[in-house]
Amino acid sequence: MFEDAELGHAVDKATFDARVPELRSALLEAQFALKDQKKFPVVLLVGGVEGGGRGETVNALSSWLDPRHVEVNGLGEPSDEELERPRMWRFWRALPPKGKIGVFFGSWYTYPILQAALSDRRVRWAKLDKRIEEIVRFERMLAEEGVLVLKFWFHLAKDAQRRRIKELKKDPHTRWRVTGVDEAYFARYDQFREVSERTLRHTSTALAPWLVVEGVDRRYRELFVAEELLRAVKARLAAPPVADRTPTRPGNAPEVDGARTLLSELDLTKKIAKGKYGKDLEKWQGQLAMLTRHKRFRDRSVVIVFEGNDAAGKGGTIRRVTGAVDARLVRVVPIAAPTDEEKAHPYLWRFWRRLPRHGHITIFDRSWYGRVLVERVEGFCSPYDWERAYSEICDFEDEMSGHGTVVAKFWLAVSKDEQLRRFKEREQVSFKTFKITEEDWRNRKKWAAYSDAVCDMVARTSTARAPWTMVEANDKYHARIKVLKTLCGQLETALG
Amino acid sequence: MFEDAELGHAVDKATFDARVPELRSALLEAQFALKDQKKFPVVLLVGGVEGGGRGETVNALSSWLDPRHVEVNGLGEPSDEELERPRMWRFWRALPPKGKIGVFFGSWYTYPILQAALSDRRVRWAKLDKRIEEIVRFERMLAEEGVLVLKFWFHLAKDAQRRRIKELKKDPHTRWRVTGVDEAYFARYDQFREVSERTLRHTSTALAPWLVVEGVDRRYRELFVAEELLRAVKARLAAPPVADRTPTRPGNAPEVDGARTLLSELDLTKKIAKGKYGKDLEKWQGQLAMLTRHKRFRDRSVVIVFEGNDAAGKGGTIRRVTGAVDARLVRVVPIAAPTDEEKAHPYLWRFWRRLPRHGHITIFDRSWYGRVLVERVEGFCSPYDWERAYSEICDFEDEMSGHGTVVAKFWLAVSKDEQLRRFKEREQVSFKTFKITEEDWRNRKKWAAYSDAVCDMVARTSTARAPWTMVEANDKYHARIKVLKTLCGQLETALG
Repeated sequence: MFEDAELGHAVDKATFDARVPELRSALLEAQFALKDQKKFPVVLLVGGVEGGGRGETVNALSSWLDPRHVEVNGLGEPSDEELERPRMWRFWRALPPKGKIGVFFGSWYTYPILQAALSDRRVRWAKLDKRIEEIVRFERMLAEEGVLVLKFWFHLAKDAQRRRIKELKKDPHTRWRVTGVDEAYFARYDQFREVSERTLRHTSTALAPWLVVEGVDRRYRELFVAEELLRAVKARLAAPPVADRTPTRPGNAPEVDGARTLLSELDLTKKIAKGKYGKDLEKWQGQLAMLTRHKRFRDRSVVIVFEGNDAAGKGGTIRRVTGAVDARLVRVVPIAAPTDEEKAHPYLWRFWRRLPRHGHITIFDRSWYGRVLVERVEGFCSPYDWERAYSEICDFEDEMSGHGTVVAKFWLAVSKDEQLRRFKEREQVSFKTFKITEEDWRNRKKWAAYSDAVCDMVARTSTARAPWTMVEANDKYHARIKVLKTLCGQLETALG
Repeated sequence: MFEDAELGHAVDKATFDARVPELRSALLEAQFALKDQKKFPVVLLVGGVEGGGRGETVNALSSWLDPRHVEVNGLGEPSDEELERPRMWRFWRALPPKGKIGVFFGSWYTYPILQAALSDRRVRWAKLDKRIEEIVRFERMLAEEGVLVLKFWFHLAKDAQRRRIKELKKDPHTRWRVTGVDEAYFARYDQFREVSERTLRHTSTALAPWLVVEGVDRRYRELFVAEELLRAVKARLAAPPVADRTPTRPGNAPEVDGARTLLSELDLTKKIAKGKYGKDLEKWQGQLAMLTRHKRFRDRSVVIVFEGNDAAGKGGTIRRVTGAVDARLVRVVPIAAPTDEEKAHPYLWRFWRRLPRHGHITIFDRSWYGRVLVERVEGFCSPYDWERAYSEICDFEDEMSGHGTVVAKFWLAVSKDEQLRRFKEREQVSFKTFKITEEDWRNRKKWAAYSDAVCDMVARTSTARAPWTMVEANDKYHARIKVLKTLCGQLETALG
């Protein structure tokens, strides 16, 4: 990857001075078109070797752009807040909305490359390769969501880096910029090169390409990055909308013996008598309270997803969970239509931003599964979009469970008859009428389509670390106890 | 993934008998349309647990289809021939051409799953995950090349598998089908389930989905697979052609300081005097001969790629290589326009089929790099297609070097002036006129576009294990010696 960035690329002053004024106004013009059209965000990653001029280039670029619509994220050591969330949380936080440019100085590449270069040869590749594949999937998701991803790698040949460190040390004004760490890294130049080469090669894709910048000459670096940014933004602004691919098999619900499904096989007659319910509730709420007071709970977080038929009793069940836990530790996030800001980001962004810190619980009342339920059934996204969501969601949940977050997911199922009974009750009981809308009746007409979507969802996203629990909810007591009991079980396992 | 395949799916005899005749004629009709239109091939993978009815289902399906246009590949233990090639060679061999259906009974999933399930928990996931990612990339390539990939997984719940083995053992007619291996596998049912679940989840993609078949009921299995095959083939036949995505940055040649390139920086004045050449040639040809007689050479193979400007002297150089090696061990493959059969397969197929056995050398006179050279420059494929080729080619070469094949790649570069001199010479010298065509003159007009393509190719596909060597070829003697010397160096390193 680096052959072309060791040729001594340079731009003379006359050429530079002649080009810059025009380039700057073209950049501003592109930036305004970007802002006005709000069709996509730009993510610009800056990586590469020490002394390759990354900082200076970013500074030059920033001074050429309108600072109101560009945000430079200097992602160095993660904060406490960040350390208590899954690895990718800090990057999701920093994702620019449509119409803006986000510069990532330090990115999801920084630590994987650093760790691999500094680690022992025998363990180097396995870990790195795993991270590389996670990154490829992440960036593919960004690209599918319309994010323009540009990645610049600042490279210096070994001799050039040696010279650069020497120069910086000689000048009293720049001496401070060379740290012991830089020199320690330089001592491992060859490892860094090998690791970076492999990483760049495997992550340079059609929709998220790397561009390698030779870092020796300031004018060359600056023109290179600015010209490429300009070119890419203009090309994307001019590009026609992309037609989605057609998935080979949109949805998995088999047509043969199609009446027998995960839902049809649920025994919805399960129930608990009122007296027993009171005792069970006390027992399991007590258990849950104990578990959230466990010493080890302070280093864990919990994410609970509630999905279910309309009127299946999600609200009441959620209250039985929150009722058992210190109110400062739990937050319920009701998911309705996304805000403007949320719509300007990839669909998972609104959920990433709500992930709990350690010692906290977030309950999602409806969730990212809307993508494969309502959005699928109502046609709010294309079959290709909801089809890819299954693996994107699994990746999202893998991030959580990989971090140590306990992920519990509940589908509350009621029969079509029971739903009708509840709808009618809601219409008649004055303090319940707010709970029933025209939309509920509309959804009910699509019962079969929703059932297919639910079965596919469970089959595709129930994993050992983030399992779905199907809850028979015709009897509210049974449903609540099953949820509390399951939660306690998952927590107990997690806390060891 | 398996929740839905443990519900006891079954089809009663009346339903089955009523559907089959119609289904069979629909299948035949679809198969004929497939054959006549020759738009894509169908790859149908069959995997799953022992006793899940894979074999019977494939037999039923085969009897329903026209056997002339379907090929069932029972890929069990690899043959000697296959063991001496990279892992994926046996599957490439079996890939059906456009218009045909290839059933893979046993596939690229078989060994990764087997190995992971039988291996120690601590090493299980790292290896499996690596293979999974390779498979995902491979299948994406197939899908991008238009192959319709359908994957069926035959599943049995633990109890169902136990019952099945018992039944087979009780009946004297089927007792032979239960081997000690089956029982040993069954003892590891839980590991197999966990490993399969992870594999299926990560490899179920929009364009190469898994369909999980509950394996208990014969009629259900057969209808399920046949209906899905029919559905998928008909849908694809009816689908409009897919518009390719536009890569963010088609080609990497930088516009800034664009005149300084890997090619412009070559010192084409390098030369060797005739006298020295004779001695050097003898020395390096001798060395090469020795190396190919090395004991360890018998377990290695060599693939050499020659690319270069027209009239750069590839032919003469190749003869200096073959001249040093036992003629039985070396084969030169000249790459011209693909045959009809080759056009009916993914573009890498014609190269896969030519890979050498152990102890053998294959020299490609032009190669798979045509995809990112002539096909790019002439617009024979879309920017998206040649852009993705870089990583597909790297994967291909990784397969080779991972197997132990030595991969050497040479770009023979001449200056534009020198090319002109040689063209004219070819036109004037009677025994050389066959070497010069109108096409050479046409290519020459696109010198700059070819140069960009060459620089991108080297930057994107030169790796530690499959490096490009740039050969200054204005002087033929220098070129030949550099090639021989480089080859000897790579072989020496490989043979330790």
